[in-house]
Amino acid sequence: MISSHLLSVADLSKDEALALLATSKELAAITEGPNKKLPTLRGKTVVNLFFEDSTRTRISFETAAKRLSADVINFSAKGSSVSKGESLKDTAQTLQAMGADAVVIRHGSSGAAKRLADSGWIQASVINAGDGTHEHPTQALLDAFTIKQHLKSNDPDLSGVKVLIVGDILHSRVARSNVILLTKLGAKVVLVAPPTLLPVGVENWPVKISYDLDSQIEDCDVIMMLRIQLERMADSYFPTEREYSRRYGLNASRLSRLAKTTIVMHPGPMNRGLEISAESADDLKSVIIDQVKNGVAIRMAVLYELLGGVQLGVDK
Amino acid sequence: MISSHLLSVADLSKDEALALLATSKELAAITEGPNKKLPTLRGKTVVNLFFEDSTRTRISFETAAKRLSADVINFSAKGSSVSKGESLKDTAQTLQAMGADAVVIRHGSSGAAKRLADSGWIQASVINAGDGTHEHPTQALLDAFTIKQHLKSNDPDLSGVKVLIVGDILHSRVARSNVILLTKLGAKVVLVAPPTLLPVGVENWPVKISYDLDSQIEDCDVIMMLRIQLERMADSYFPTEREYSRRYGLNASRLSRLAKTTIVMHPGPMNRGLEISAESADDLKSVIIDQVKNGVAIRMAVLYELLGGVQLGVDK
Amino acid sequence: MISSHLLSVADLSKDEALALLATSKELAAITEGPNKKLPTLRGKTVVNLFFEDSTRTRISFETAAKRLSADVINFSAKGSSVSKGESLKDTAQTLQAMGADAVVIRHGSSGAAKRLADSGWIQASVINAGDGTHEHPTQALLDAFTIKQHLKSNDPDLSGVKVLIVGDILHSRVARSNVILLTKLGAKVVLVAPPTLLPVGVENWPVKISYDLDSQIEDCDVIMMLRIQLERMADSYFPTEREYSRRYGLNASRLSRLAKTTIVMHPGPMNRGLEISAESADDLKSVIIDQVKNGVAIRMAVLYELLGGVQLGVDK
Repeated sequence: MISSHLLSVADLSKDEALALLATSKELAAITEGPNKKLPTLRGKTVVNLFFEDSTRTRISFETAAKRLSADVINFSAKGSSVSKGESLKDTAQTLQAMGADAVVIRHGSSGAAKRLADSGWIQASVINAGDGTHEHPTQALLDAFTIKQHLKSNDPDLSGVKVLIVGDILHSRVARSNVILLTKLGAKVVLVAPPTLLPVGVENWPVKISYDLDSQIEDCDVIMMLRIQLERMADSYFPTEREYSRRYGLNASRLSRLAKTTIVMHPGPMNRGLEISAESADDLKSVIIDQVKNGVAIRMAVLYELLGGVQLGVDK
Repeated sequence: MISSHLLSVADLSKDEALALLATSKELAAITEGPNKKLPTLRGKTVVNLFFEDSTRTRISFETAAKRLSADVINFSAKGSSVSKGESLKDTAQTLQAMGADAVVIRHGSSGAAKRLADSGWIQASVINAGDGTHEHPTQALLDAFTIKQHLKSNDPDLSGVKVLIVGDILHSRVARSNVILLTKLGAKVVLVAPPTLLPVGVENWPVKISYDLDSQIEDCDVIMMLRIQLERMADSYFPTEREYSRRYGLNASRLSRLAKTTIVMHPGPMNRGLEISAESADDLKSVIIDQVKNGVAIRMAVLYELLGGVQLGVDK
Repeated sequence: MISSHLLSVADLSKDEALALLATSKELAAITEGPNKKLPTLRGKTVVNLFFEDSTRTRISFETAAKRLSADVINFSAKGSSVSKGESLKDTAQTLQAMGADAVVIRHGSSGAAKRLADSGWIQASVINAGDGTHEHPTQALLDAFTIKQHLKSNDPDLSGVKVLIVGDILHSRVARSNVILLTKLGAKVVLVAPPTLLPVGVENWPVKISYDLDSQIEDCDVIMMLRIQLERMADSYFPTEREYSRRYGLNASRLSRLAKTTIVMHPGPMNRGLEISAESADDLKSVIIDQVKNGVAIRMAVLYELLGGVQLGVDK
């Protein structure tokens, strides 16, 4: 199905992406029972190679791998020889030599996962768990899965779904991966952000742009709030937290204007009270917890397809 | 038996506590052999959610969970999104969504475990591995187990055993949990500490208080030395290390005055030479190593009862 | 075969060392297939007790233990009670009491592993994963394995092989262990270093000494480049990085002067451009990746022999 790596959602055809969602659904169902474990990847080794801290993403992959009975090795590059100047190449070859079957890589530099995969340094499957401001493909897949689950469970794709992505698009690999994948699956994406938080060239993306959240809120099917990186406040991308929250936050008033069936999403971790109010996060419209849950199923599916080889009976 | 959480020893009836000790004894016996592993919790996931460093406690729970064949996910909240301001609620719901069956929580705030359990945020079993100065229930259980093993192995409970708990009672969750549990099991507890290290309201606890270790030492059955937090020295709870050691430390002279059958306990890690001398720690009367060993059995029993469901043949 | 610990290669007889290499070869072959896992150590617990960071060595032991189905507990002593002043004795007894079957120890002090093993504190097998400037026995074993694999696969030992070890001999436990093991197996070792980086008493070692790399390079069979600890530059063991590299680095010019069958080794992690040029590291003569791979096999063999008990059909 997908090749030997998962670097970017751009590498997935529409059919491949839909097949991954279908596999995830099956795996989620199989592991709903009391024993969540499948023997599929017994004897395989999955390495979590994290150059940036991300406990959530690491735990999600670790859980997914263990449910498939793989062995998991956590490699936090902080304080390791990597920080003593070892090259990515040597780190990669070391993991390969130790018998890693998959390397899940989180890195601060855009393109790090691709460099690892394309270099010829390793034969292990490379899974991009977030590279700089570039991509976070499993996040986009779990978001697509969650949207389909709630709004299009009986449809072949996401045709016609209107998705708002709100916030710091400029620095967001989540936004980037979602734009690519959701539009591929037929959704209409509107990016809502202050001009300072939109990337150069965004006018060429297959999306609509708005600077005004209130004008977009009433007819969307999905509103996805991005996390504000508080440490960027200092860079004055926007005047103050309060000003940002007032203009681009999902608060009670905006929540009340959403259509009845609209769902609220957030990739987490949330800054409650900043980009999303506590009541919005906890509202019945919120599917944020489903996103986390589906994240494990998506990562199981990705590991399964990359390492397992055998088909799950998905018709492709 | 016990409900779905273990938050406080106060929640356990005497019979429930004794049943847990009995289960621990069975599990300890079963796992004495060369293969220490039981398949009981295969397919279950135990998350160690540690907001404070405590390698010993984390390893003890990790070992217990792995012996029961559970998958273990270690989540150190330091440097994670939690330290970036994520709420306990969101962290909890994330773990729940990822399929955690039990969350072992160590937290600096008293009541954190209870908040997690009572909030309705998660259905997973919550196990309190130490919350602020409040409680540390598995420590009290392993202490009770160790006392029973050495002094009351053929008796139904700890009736009549006289236990000295010596040191920084004020900040000690170990002392608090032990007072509750040991008195419930029939023991007589004497707290020995300088007045500055006793909590307000201690006169209402079901214990005797003494400021003078030497007056208590000769007729006790158990002497439990608490760890002095060196970082609190600066707060001048007591004048100097030497002065503390002279008045409240277990040294050779005091050791020689203990009765023949008296046992010496310490929750670890020890400050040898401060609250306990090296010769006391290593004396035949010391059961400190047994405490560590029994800690694994107790934690296995707790996980077993909370997650396993099936009874081990313990007559209750 | 070997006793209950692996502390120093000096403790291994020649036959024992060769038997370990043979076991490693068998284990490597068995685990070449798609399922790299053997059930041999199921129910055993291996603790990685690391007082110094060494992600590579930790991961190599962790991988080895998991391939043999042991449970692995990682204990990083940084930030643990150990750093709060707990003694090695208490840490050791704690691990013992928790049921550790093997303790893999990395420590900054020479002799720490031996102290742990000889103290009577624990019955668990102790494996030295590097102690101060003293020894790193599994590194020497994997180096011997790699040399034999490439140059002497059909010979009983390493007789007649000429091995250059180049660089900071003074601080290198890798050099120390290799000198002992390689000479025991029949190799001729030449140490090449500036006088400031040779230890006192080196004239009594069973090696030749040279200060001049260029004079030694043409007739060696193996050239093993040691890592330069950049943090030691400040101590002025040598004038500048550039000067060191010029006199003792393996660069293109020296690489071209090596014999056709000579192999290039490095224990990793490399400082590319300092003690070894990138082209040397990546040259066909380089067996550095094989060293990493063989490291897992060696550590499996050590764990197997120490904990497994049963023989693998190796004729001894």
